[in-house]
Amino acid sequence: MSEVRLNIITGDWVVIATERAKRPEDFSHAKQKKEVRAHVDTCPFCKGNESKTPPETFSINGPDNNWLVRCVPNKFSAFSPDGNIVKTKTDFKQYVTGVGLHEVIVETPEHNMTTALLPIPHIEQILIAYKHRLIAFYEDSRIEHVIIFKNHGESAGTSLEHPHSQIVGTPVLPGQVMNRLGEAIRNYYYVNFGDCLYCLYLKDEQKDGIRIIGENDSFVAFVPYAALSPFHVWIFPRKHSACFGHITDSEVSDFAKILKDTLLRLYIGLENPDFNYVIRSLSPVGADSKFFHWYLAIIPKVTQIAGFELGTGMFINTALPEESARFLREVKI
Amino acid sequence: MSEVRLNIITGDWVVIATERAKRPEDFSHAKQKKEVRAHVDTCPFCKGNESKTPPETFSINGPDNNWLVRCVPNKFSAFSPDGNIVKTKTDFKQYVTGVGLHEVIVETPEHNMTTALLPIPHIEQILIAYKHRLIAFYEDSRIEHVIIFKNHGESAGTSLEHPHSQIVGTPVLPGQVMNRLGEAIRNYYYVNFGDCLYCLYLKDEQKDGIRIIGENDSFVAFVPYAALSPFHVWIFPRKHSACFGHITDSEVSDFAKILKDTLLRLYIGLENPDFNYVIRSLSPVGADSKFFHWYLAIIPKVTQIAGFELGTGMFINTALPEESARFLREVKI
Repeated sequence: MSEVRLNIITGDWVVIATERAKRPEDFSHAKQKKEVRAHVDTCPFCKGNESKTPPETFSINGPDNNWLVRCVPNKFSAFSPDGNIVKTKTDFKQYVTGVGLHEVIVETPEHNMTTALLPIPHIEQILIAYKHRLIAFYEDSRIEHVIIFKNHGESAGTSLEHPHSQIVGTPVLPGQVMNRLGEAIRNYYYVNFGDCLYCLYLKDEQKDGIRIIGENDSFVAFVPYAALSPFHVWIFPRKHSACFGHITDSEVSDFAKILKDTLLRLYIGLENPDFNYVIRSLSPVGADSKFFHWYLAIIPKVTQIAGFELGTGMFINTALPEESARFLREVKI
Repeated sequence: MSEVRLNIITGDWVVIATERAKRPEDFSHAKQKKEVRAHVDTCPFCKGNESKTPPETFSINGPDNNWLVRCVPNKFSAFSPDGNIVKTKTDFKQYVTGVGLHEVIVETPEHNMTTALLPIPHIEQILIAYKHRLIAFYEDSRIEHVIIFKNHGESAGTSLEHPHSQIVGTPVLPGQVMNRLGEAIRNYYYVNFGDCLYCLYLKDEQKDGIRIIGENDSFVAFVPYAALSPFHVWIFPRKHSACFGHITDSEVSDFAKILKDTLLRLYIGLENPDFNYVIRSLSPVGADSKFFHWYLAIIPKVTQIAGFELGTGMFINTALPEESARFLREVKI
């Protein structure tokens, strides 16, 4: 019989459908190998095409003085970087002007590279760019919340194949984030009277051990107990901190190592699956918050959202989290 | 500049990206016309193939004594109809056995029919089957929540093209539903001190008028102020009731009329788009609840969920809800 497991962080139930569970191997979907060149003339993110993007906001150069990582405003943002926050409210209708920041972090000059294959020092530079832009976004008083994410592959919603991530600053606190903060606060002050839910949950995952994929001095990567889809992975910092922007240099190095290790296991084990990842963090001002704990979530794109998921918010995971973790642990990298 | 609108029912913010808004006409996507036959030998839902499904739980016959609508257990359910609820809980891990009910409502014997084109009396029979199964599911004391939904088209998650809906009874209250009930209770007792949020919101939509698609004695169909995607439609009963199972015969008739009218506008105006619909309802025991109000939501499948949506729960709607409503109102049916 399947199990309905509670995700204690989000408050969502997940159906772990063990009876119709597929073997982890069945999720790998070798794509048609497409010949992709290292440089594409029409790609705005390729080296030499810098004039095709708006002026860069931040970049990091390599030893040869050429850029390694480059941040530029997203030309097709749903938000406007200029203008004022204007709030309008009647009893049942409420809106705020769509002021917001939205940038693309171009991860490498090479069009046909993929994050999992970049050397660790290069991934460190991507993370340093994330940190820099997150802090800069939060310095804009119009911004209420900042989210960093990556869409890898067409089914994960990317329109440009050149490796890139995105960062968005919104003028409101998203309802989903507000609900999680509510859960975190309730757990901190009430259920655990003075301990961070995330810290305690991480210790519990480490004690169990069976869902751990890898760990180092600063981070632990694991498939959560109530993973919402096959190969759903969380990377938690061991140190309690609510803001990714407060990451130290040595933590950046450890984060780059575990991120590469995890992405490489997915890349090899599942043959370059499409995925999204997301960094969940509060603002530097809220960094000392005792009840929230930043982390990165990777969601490989292997399930579809239909009426049941829309109507309940519950996901059906056809792989046992313990099996997904074992599979990823055993991938030879 | 875009607007960030609050969905007062769900507590979610939606970005109405007016600047990159497409015209409603741009969403219509004429599919390759596929020749589909009225009867497919291998389809378990076609007339004559009744032995290919588990024994039916309920059916409604037409005047010729052949079935019009037929309910059968879903062979590929993630839940088991047999077994006991067993709850297991440690501090950070909590699960319940995957006991649950899952049936398919076959909407017509004809393989190549579509709900929007069925005659109104036939749609009434589908709704009567929904009502019957909802009440029956809630009579099982192991069931905590029941959801009725339809996935239409491949991109909306359907694997069988024969017209059908689904009903699922879960052993837990989904977190998303719990959050909505919380919002509804807070609004009822605190914000509106004694008035149903849904009733008040419906009156506000009717007063505005610009997002209404159609109405009759018992129902109003409209594009919500904070529609999460283009052509997102809600059909609200005018009468306050928390449970779809308490719908009366004359309301069934009015519901069939407005559902057909709305689906036909989508079918003609957008050339048979893929969509999901969902009926959100409490149990018959909770039918008298003053703070919740059942309704049907239709979400045409025209957007993709990527990192931003996963990380924030916020959707970006590239069509102005007022424009979507005008377009659907003006479709000649």
